[in-house]
Amino acid sequence: MNAECSKNVGPSDQVRLARAYLLRVVEPPGVALGVFVEQVGPVEAAAAVRSGEAPRQVVDETSARQEVELAHADLERAAGVGGRLVVPEDDEWPAWPLLSLTNARGGGARWAAPPLGLWVRGAGSLDDVVRKSVAVVGARSATGYGEHVATEFGYELAERAVTVISGAAFGVDGAAHRGALAAKGTTVAVLACGVDVPYPAAHTSLIDRVARDGAVVSEYPPGTTPAKYRFLVRNRLIAALSQGTVVVEAGVRSGARNTATSAAALGKPVLAVPGQVGSAMSRGCHEMIRAGTATLVNTVDEVLEAVGEIGDLAPGPSAPRRPTDGLGKQAARVHDALSPRESRGAEWVARESGVPLDRVRALLPELELTGLARRGEDGWSRERT
Amino acid sequence: MNAECSKNVGPSDQVRLARAYLLRVVEPPGVALGVFVEQVGPVEAAAAVRSGEAPRQVVDETSARQEVELAHADLERAAGVGGRLVVPEDDEWPAWPLLSLTNARGGGARWAAPPLGLWVRGAGSLDDVVRKSVAVVGARSATGYGEHVATEFGYELAERAVTVISGAAFGVDGAAHRGALAAKGTTVAVLACGVDVPYPAAHTSLIDRVARDGAVVSEYPPGTTPAKYRFLVRNRLIAALSQGTVVVEAGVRSGARNTATSAAALGKPVLAVPGQVGSAMSRGCHEMIRAGTATLVNTVDEVLEAVGEIGDLAPGPSAPRRPTDGLGKQAARVHDALSPRESRGAEWVARESGVPLDRVRALLPELELTGLARRGEDGWSRERT
Repeated sequence: MNAECSKNVGPSDQVRLARAYLLRVVEPPGVALGVFVEQVGPVEAAAAVRSGEAPRQVVDETSARQEVELAHADLERAAGVGGRLVVPEDDEWPAWPLLSLTNARGGGARWAAPPLGLWVRGAGSLDDVVRKSVAVVGARSATGYGEHVATEFGYELAERAVTVISGAAFGVDGAAHRGALAAKGTTVAVLACGVDVPYPAAHTSLIDRVARDGAVVSEYPPGTTPAKYRFLVRNRLIAALSQGTVVVEAGVRSGARNTATSAAALGKPVLAVPGQVGSAMSRGCHEMIRAGTATLVNTVDEVLEAVGEIGDLAPGPSAPRRPTDGLGKQAARVHDALSPRESRGAEWVARESGVPLDRVRALLPELELTGLARRGEDGWSRERT
Repeated sequence: MNAECSKNVGPSDQVRLARAYLLRVVEPPGVALGVFVEQVGPVEAAAAVRSGEAPRQVVDETSARQEVELAHADLERAAGVGGRLVVPEDDEWPAWPLLSLTNARGGGARWAAPPLGLWVRGAGSLDDVVRKSVAVVGARSATGYGEHVATEFGYELAERAVTVISGAAFGVDGAAHRGALAAKGTTVAVLACGVDVPYPAAHTSLIDRVARDGAVVSEYPPGTTPAKYRFLVRNRLIAALSQGTVVVEAGVRSGARNTATSAAALGKPVLAVPGQVGSAMSRGCHEMIRAGTATLVNTVDEVLEAVGEIGDLAPGPSAPRRPTDGLGKQAARVHDALSPRESRGAEWVARESGVPLDRVRALLPELELTGLARRGEDGWSRERT
């Protein structure tokens, strides 16, 4: 059955139904199931899960719901709100940004499992929509200042044709979406519930507008209600789909900081907006800046300057003349540090290039994907171009 | 005559008159004159300047005013406002903090010439007053937020028995002094004019209160009026006398940033208070934080944490049990990195200790002064204690 799929240009209905089934029976992130699907393909994996004959860890992740057969119903229910299931076999699958999750999982971060599929409301190709994007996140109980900055950043990012990704929550999230919409830009809401579940309820019309002009995205099947742990699991998708995360306001313990931590672990820039020192809502931002885990930003230009280094690497609409033309500064330095003849470890490349090790670890696989670097048994070398 | 002075416990009147004369005939910082005075002593230097038979560069620095004989008059004029001239030969000379200027000048920073003497209004020993001190500086056109933070920081530093050093200007400076006074603490105003010149005029009573409860300090002779370049020259004294500088608010180009740059060049911690991103008065602070030249601080505790590493090194009232007991973290690491047998360069010590090179360059001479390190022809070694 796998052989059959791989012959087709698009995925078969069987593949989509298999992934819809798997998304229903596992509670994300579902690390073991994800690896199993990558090994045997979604159709065979679904059959194994149904029969209970999957590897032990996969059975552990799926046994509680393995008999829930709602794949057809979920696809219909999504269609009822103008939604669809986007799967890795689709052209519009955002393989490039989600590669950061696969890399981090490979490095031992179990939370970083890539999604098995994404339920999407919104007309555009998901890959196109997130290609050039920045996450703007922050406290639900934002101050007027925080909402003002989030709105401004959302507006100005959209004006520069950058998609604004956020979580549709009260406070900073909602303000960021609204700012982008006000600039007639594209914005994406990644939910911790089904794409047909308007949460928070007061944001029903906001979420509808996001779906109309951008995309509403979730790995949770239609009808899934939000839960506290789902917000944390969802945050990895906000971090992964965007090319950098801006935290506008955050208390000392906040979901926004969790998103920022995820983004940093994925090797993506984390930016934080400062505020007045007395404001509890700026304490999280200030702590991240003090700890060196976030860079202070005043303006959207500073945000774009920071994300540009990774963002420029992604294949854009206009193909560069030379393979290395589109590289950001850090990527170019990493590429320069590689030798076409000898293999080097990431640590060596970091020392040679002066690029931080975590960025090197994120950039090397991206260079590999664009055919500029080669991964060998004993390290990395430059691909002859 | 030098031999005579060195036999006395305190300096002779001749020494004080010589330095008063020299402070009158040179426009600070007067690098060549300062070096000349260190070589031949103040009395001989004054004679040479009077006769025009000093080294060429010293003559260049003094020829315009060499005939201005106001030493006696200046001492009387200072006494008239309760002031005195403190000279390096006095016990109360703050040799320790000002050593940072000598070191920086030795490293090629001509602006960092130590003062030839300091005119002081205030009852306490100058050395005692600045021993544990932090500079709080910022924009004259501070916002209400900036003045509020400056007042709070001034108050809380004073409550912790830390002297607040500033420049008596409108805005942040005045607020910092007032905060310290409100806490019945000690505060020092370093002026760019004579200690008998109340500038700005609206701060006359504030400056009087600072002199009463702390000290008003200047290297400019009585009656000197402020001038733009004198503020910049003055700023090196604020940076040098304190153990760290906090910038509360600063525009992109501002005197406070000049003070911060001086402090950094002297190897002292620079802290900056963040504010809202729309505020022009926070832009300078945000730029320094972004550039990594200042550390973001929210609270006075964070300020003390940052300055503690250098501050703890200064000999305090209670003597530590072992010679290394009083060392801050970085000083201890630098000390550990030294070998009692082999000489090492500052670069080597920086690599070995993980302490930034400029801090190493500042800490090594301080360790030498406390008898913990030895400077040799080919580098530094650990003193056997």
